[in-house]
Amino acid sequence: MTLEKKNMAGRILLLLLCMNAVSFIVNAVPQTCPADLGGKCAEDDDWEGEFFPGIPKIKYEGTSSKNPLAYKWYNAEEEILGKKMKDWLRFSVAFWHTFRGTGADPFGAPTKYWPWEDGTNSIAMAKRRMRANFEFINKLGVDRWCFHDRDIAPDGKTLEEANANLDEVVALAKELQGDKIRPLWGTAQLFMHPRYMHGGATSSEVGVYAYAAAQVKKAMEVTHYLGGENYVFWGGREGYQSLLNTDMERELDHLARFLEAAVAYKKKIGFNGTLLIEPKPQEPTKHQYDWDAATTANFLRKYGLLGEFKLNIECNHATLSGHRFVICHHDLETARINGLLGNIDANTGDPQIGWDTDQFMTDIGEATMVMLSVIRNVYGERVQMLRTCSLLILVEWTPWPVDSEMLPS
Amino acid sequence: MTLEKKNMAGRILLLLLCMNAVSFIVNAVPQTCPADLGGKCAEDDDWEGEFFPGIPKIKYEGTSSKNPLAYKWYNAEEEILGKKMKDWLRFSVAFWHTFRGTGADPFGAPTKYWPWEDGTNSIAMAKRRMRANFEFINKLGVDRWCFHDRDIAPDGKTLEEANANLDEVVALAKELQGDKIRPLWGTAQLFMHPRYMHGGATSSEVGVYAYAAAQVKKAMEVTHYLGGENYVFWGGREGYQSLLNTDMERELDHLARFLEAAVAYKKKIGFNGTLLIEPKPQEPTKHQYDWDAATTANFLRKYGLLGEFKLNIECNHATLSGHRFVICHHDLETARINGLLGNIDANTGDPQIGWDTDQFMTDIGEATMVMLSVIRNVYGERVQMLRTCSLLILVEWTPWPVDSEMLPS
Amino acid sequence: MTLEKKNMAGRILLLLLCMNAVSFIVNAVPQTCPADLGGKCAEDDDWEGEFFPGIPKIKYEGTSSKNPLAYKWYNAEEEILGKKMKDWLRFSVAFWHTFRGTGADPFGAPTKYWPWEDGTNSIAMAKRRMRANFEFINKLGVDRWCFHDRDIAPDGKTLEEANANLDEVVALAKELQGDKIRPLWGTAQLFMHPRYMHGGATSSEVGVYAYAAAQVKKAMEVTHYLGGENYVFWGGREGYQSLLNTDMERELDHLARFLEAAVAYKKKIGFNGTLLIEPKPQEPTKHQYDWDAATTANFLRKYGLLGEFKLNIECNHATLSGHRFVICHHDLETARINGLLGNIDANTGDPQIGWDTDQFMTDIGEATMVMLSVIRNVYGERVQMLRTCSLLILVEWTPWPVDSEMLPS
Amino acid sequence: MTLEKKNMAGRILLLLLCMNAVSFIVNAVPQTCPADLGGKCAEDDDWEGEFFPGIPKIKYEGTSSKNPLAYKWYNAEEEILGKKMKDWLRFSVAFWHTFRGTGADPFGAPTKYWPWEDGTNSIAMAKRRMRANFEFINKLGVDRWCFHDRDIAPDGKTLEEANANLDEVVALAKELQGDKIRPLWGTAQLFMHPRYMHGGATSSEVGVYAYAAAQVKKAMEVTHYLGGENYVFWGGREGYQSLLNTDMERELDHLARFLEAAVAYKKKIGFNGTLLIEPKPQEPTKHQYDWDAATTANFLRKYGLLGEFKLNIECNHATLSGHRFVICHHDLETARINGLLGNIDANTGDPQIGWDTDQFMTDIGEATMVMLSVIRNVYGERVQMLRTCSLLILVEWTPWPVDSEMLPS
Repeated sequence: MTLEKKNMAGRILLLLLCMNAVSFIVNAVPQTCPADLGGKCAEDDDWEGEFFPGIPKIKYEGTSSKNPLAYKWYNAEEEILGKKMKDWLRFSVAFWHTFRGTGADPFGAPTKYWPWEDGTNSIAMAKRRMRANFEFINKLGVDRWCFHDRDIAPDGKTLEEANANLDEVVALAKELQGDKIRPLWGTAQLFMHPRYMHGGATSSEVGVYAYAAAQVKKAMEVTHYLGGENYVFWGGREGYQSLLNTDMERELDHLARFLEAAVAYKKKIGFNGTLLIEPKPQEPTKHQYDWDAATTANFLRKYGLLGEFKLNIECNHATLSGHRFVICHHDLETARINGLLGNIDANTGDPQIGWDTDQFMTDIGEATMVMLSVIRNVYGERVQMLRTCSLLILVEWTPWPVDSEMLPS
Repeated sequence: MTLEKKNMAGRILLLLLCMNAVSFIVNAVPQTCPADLGGKCAEDDDWEGEFFPGIPKIKYEGTSSKNPLAYKWYNAEEEILGKKMKDWLRFSVAFWHTFRGTGADPFGAPTKYWPWEDGTNSIAMAKRRMRANFEFINKLGVDRWCFHDRDIAPDGKTLEEANANLDEVVALAKELQGDKIRPLWGTAQLFMHPRYMHGGATSSEVGVYAYAAAQVKKAMEVTHYLGGENYVFWGGREGYQSLLNTDMERELDHLARFLEAAVAYKKKIGFNGTLLIEPKPQEPTKHQYDWDAATTANFLRKYGLLGEFKLNIECNHATLSGHRFVICHHDLETARINGLLGNIDANTGDPQIGWDTDQFMTDIGEATMVMLSVIRNVYGERVQMLRTCSLLILVEWTPWPVDSEMLPS
Repeated sequence: MTLEKKNMAGRILLLLLCMNAVSFIVNAVPQTCPADLGGKCAEDDDWEGEFFPGIPKIKYEGTSSKNPLAYKWYNAEEEILGKKMKDWLRFSVAFWHTFRGTGADPFGAPTKYWPWEDGTNSIAMAKRRMRANFEFINKLGVDRWCFHDRDIAPDGKTLEEANANLDEVVALAKELQGDKIRPLWGTAQLFMHPRYMHGGATSSEVGVYAYAAAQVKKAMEVTHYLGGENYVFWGGREGYQSLLNTDMERELDHLARFLEAAVAYKKKIGFNGTLLIEPKPQEPTKHQYDWDAATTANFLRKYGLLGEFKLNIECNHATLSGHRFVICHHDLETARINGLLGNIDANTGDPQIGWDTDQFMTDIGEATMVMLSVIRNVYGERVQMLRTCSLLILVEWTPWPVDSEMLPS
Repeated sequence: MTLEKKNMAGRILLLLLCMNAVSFIVNAVPQTCPADLGGKCAEDDDWEGEFFPGIPKIKYEGTSSKNPLAYKWYNAEEEILGKKMKDWLRFSVAFWHTFRGTGADPFGAPTKYWPWEDGTNSIAMAKRRMRANFEFINKLGVDRWCFHDRDIAPDGKTLEEANANLDEVVALAKELQGDKIRPLWGTAQLFMHPRYMHGGATSSEVGVYAYAAAQVKKAMEVTHYLGGENYVFWGGREGYQSLLNTDMERELDHLARFLEAAVAYKKKIGFNGTLLIEPKPQEPTKHQYDWDAATTANFLRKYGLLGEFKLNIECNHATLSGHRFVICHHDLETARINGLLGNIDANTGDPQIGWDTDQFMTDIGEATMVMLSVIRNVYGERVQMLRTCSLLILVEWTPWPVDSEMLPS
């Protein structure tokens, strides 16, 4: 089947409708458990029945379907340009946004509560969330998810305790994954805990540097154990508040050493996934070192790390760095032509809200340009402006690696 | 004594040094109590000894002093341009920033702990904080403070409980104020609680509107009781996230009614202070209705409220609204020539951090322009570009009302 | 015919296609005359034949047409929501952009030449351009145009000479207009000539103030003579470069007097058109006094001019003022609910090019929101989010005045 | 003499005063020749007497001098930190800004006329300007200047004619330079002529690419002939308007080839000066390829050009790229730690005017940070936050190359 035979414009609209469907799921759930912080739904993780009761598995029903909970354009098995849609659009459920976001902002308390939350961050609670995650993934019909270590399991008073907590939750995740589901990526959260206020790999405290390294070591092991495809570094606090008290060159040297060690450990444990760096110009740190794709490429070249890392481009981050050609298209293309396009977080931001809002991408024009970079990443320069398709935002996904056998005849 | 006889440039530097002194106080306190959230310093508010031990009352010692905890330029009783410095620079300790700020940001947990904090927001804890506040005020040698209702006392499960909590803490504050200290302003916090997620006076829920009104009523009573000079409205959530689901005209009508009621109640209880509105363009709401001084002036004129309100200009807010003439000078002048300059929060922001950072103003040029607006507000257009002085940022202050007898001969 | 019976989504696409058609016209013209500046096409205005040879009158041919020079969605006589499309979308050819733009930028020489340009700004050249303008208008099938005085006729060494030049060209325009075509608006260009470097109505030179007034007087007479519907004020240099040497209050007083005089003169000559003010926050002046709709509304209220003026909202200007809800929708709604929405320049800007680029609006979402404000301006709050249509960008147009007889039954 | 012995704070103020002095020169010149464009001062370059009559050579007179045309802090021969001030602050008169700027903006005609301008760009006029340039340089007492080829000599109808024009003016410049004055840098203007509308080295037209190369060849020869220290590339149009019709990778390949050829030619003619690239993120092109220091470093590394080029950081450009730590300090430090800090254009921009305004830097804090990077470039990381001094803005200057023998004992 050739591209010309398809109604691609319609297809784009369908994909957007499917986004609305997903959003509907999230909002339509009845709040059966009191949402006030003091409430307890259960003493342990014995949540009765389904997390999303009454919601069936979402299916492709075509453009004529009136079912709000159906894919109208995304038909996972349908082939376009030599690949199945599910291989072009490798949707991944982000644990962070889907299950740990609370709706808080710098001026306001949380406003969003899942009925199964009991106000604690106990291991029992963490396991219950993990069950919700897999029910959600299965009902959506996708087969990838992604996580930070501290999203999925509670921190501990010591590293050992934190690692033990993580192991317990990960064992459950492994069981729930089954044969088909696995992580698109895992990562270590090196920005929430106060110890990281001046960075992890660029902290001025050697103890913090060591703690960050230990946390990455464990998160990489866990990602490997779960069959993850990638491991991500997001250096949200690797940067400076003021150059007046920062030796930028030395901090970048430290960061390079940190990443070299991660490469060595990856090889030691036989993890074959890709290491990704996710650029962001600022926030939470005033100025981050991985400002954008070009800045990160320069860093990788300078320190001889070019073959070991790719980039995870987040659209909202790319916007903040000031490259405003149809949102993140400039940064996607910069990553691509430097041979570094590894993964995309196809979200969008709000020009009037100062903090990173990680919103759904709802603009067809933007989504089309993102997809264009993905297709070019596979087929190269032969692909010009295709009237082609779009993507989801609750999710994170990886472009298929270049594979010449996939080229259309 | 005339202006020419003074070394005003030196004076400006001195005022900046005095800022550093204040900052030093804040940071130099030994952390005698474990800062972890679970720690308890005491079961009640029986904090032993001083909150800032070893810190004497800060005095004016002149430019030759080497004492880091001395005013080098700010000499409260010295007369400049017909007024004492303490009447030009009406410093006020902001309870919010000084005692309730935690150093958290959207990506990170709190990083700042006062040793007397026990991890709770009990009434005992609230009273202990209030004692710290007055020790701080007395040691600084200033005589004004300002607060939100929910900063100084814990919220309650019901309005009655919240009001009772507030009464108990306010009674202590009244006692600690003594004869000379009183609030520059009080206000109600209508943005933190989830009920205010869509606004207070512009909420689409009538129950929220009523709750907000009740909270303002109580906060105004309390401000009056404490002898406050002004009452402030900050409409951080009075705006919209999307015009697609908002009837802006109707919401503005509701806001005007709300303010009319506040005016009526002020008169009823005999509160003679000024009602102030503090403009801000965005954050936390995507777009706020009181964007800047001109927008707020238009609102007041449209609804016949012009004589009843003045503006509290916060420099960081003015910057966000895009008027970038030496930071907030444009908005200060706009307020002034509309007869609306009531109060100034002379802080500064960071162009690279997306959220409101409420930083100390450290730029002499900016501070000079702020002071120019204050002097013009008193003496009018006769005052051109004075090589004159500056101000503090931990603080909030009111320009002296116009008084023709104060004009220099 | 009801809205539901129409395929409005398709209609929007059609309108965009019609934009491309217009753009095609502009670019497809063969450059029959050497474009170098020294070249002369003719000694006088005897341009042989058509300006746009081979281009027929553009017609509505429906969505199935393959003709690139056809309207596919814009069917002037078709009725939607109780009005004909041509009454909703009152397209107007802007003489400035269409015939006097050269493609120059601050770093580059002109790059665009019409073949009929001879490198001069003689009266003969001005008349030839005017003939091109009316051929263009007639071929597009619209019936409105708009102009600055200095666009259409050469300036003179004296005011008398400039006025005489204007009269000569206007006489030709009057003849070419015929019965159906007339100006949407006229205006005086008070920003190009060096005398206006510090403003016209807010200049610190009384002679400049007087000259500006004389120029407005003449431009208003000419607009009246041509049957114009509106007269526009764009105060591009009415503002300041620095508040350090500007008495903002006094300049605003001067501006108000200037506008009062314009109102008086309008009544004296019997011009019944609407007076419009076009807000812009900055550029060319660092800070302009008519920052946005709310600021201008405040000015009109303060000086008692509220009933005498409406606003001409230009989308690119609204964007610069920082109100970023779907581009200019916030400012359109602010104008509307203040009873001031008079006209719209539905263009778009480029967030990465610092100067006002006056680009075609090509985003359907933005265009839809603009149209929503227009419909609400006619039908009021009953109209919620309509899945309705949009507009052109080469053009300027006025929303139909509120007329209760037009309400759909 | 050690740093401690000096009153550096005072020194900074002095340097700012000297800026005002320079500005005074520019504005104080009597307009003895009618400034209207049609006026002619002379038929040839026989300008009678001085260009800046009554202005003596500017001298250092110390802080107590009341002479507005005196250096109060800049004492060229005085040694600070092991170097003379004139070796730290290598002021260079920019021909472009000083003699060819007209005060035009996108909305306004020129407002600034030198009395010796006759409204033409003849060779005679070009020579007269060159004489003015050297009178200015000599009266200022600096010994460097910088230029674009098209600033100093008129373009021609053919490359040969343009080159001949350039040769004639350059011969005069060579004569006027004498022994001590020479160019800090020369460059080719590849952005004004319409042929460069889509770039020079990245144009899609091979003829334009070749023309640009020929122009660079000639400009480099001329710079070499005049004894220039550096040759600069400013790629104002090397970028894209839209990625939809641009093959970014291919254009960057072309640019790299262009620069390789320039390196080869430099070596062939024995020019030993440094080749510099001046980054800028946008304007005039929507998105330029040399966005900032890190992006340009990545480009140089990717194409193996790292040893052949350094960067010329212009502060206003650095601001536009979004790195806002005390204006351009981030980009200066990024250049420095990549071993690429070659030259600085220490100007400033206006956050409210959209186009590059190339203003004088007037903020002491900014200037101090710029100077800190210069000192670190010489002395390395040993230098922390020095209370040290600053610079001029009419000018362009190069930091002294690292020279270990210059280290203070």
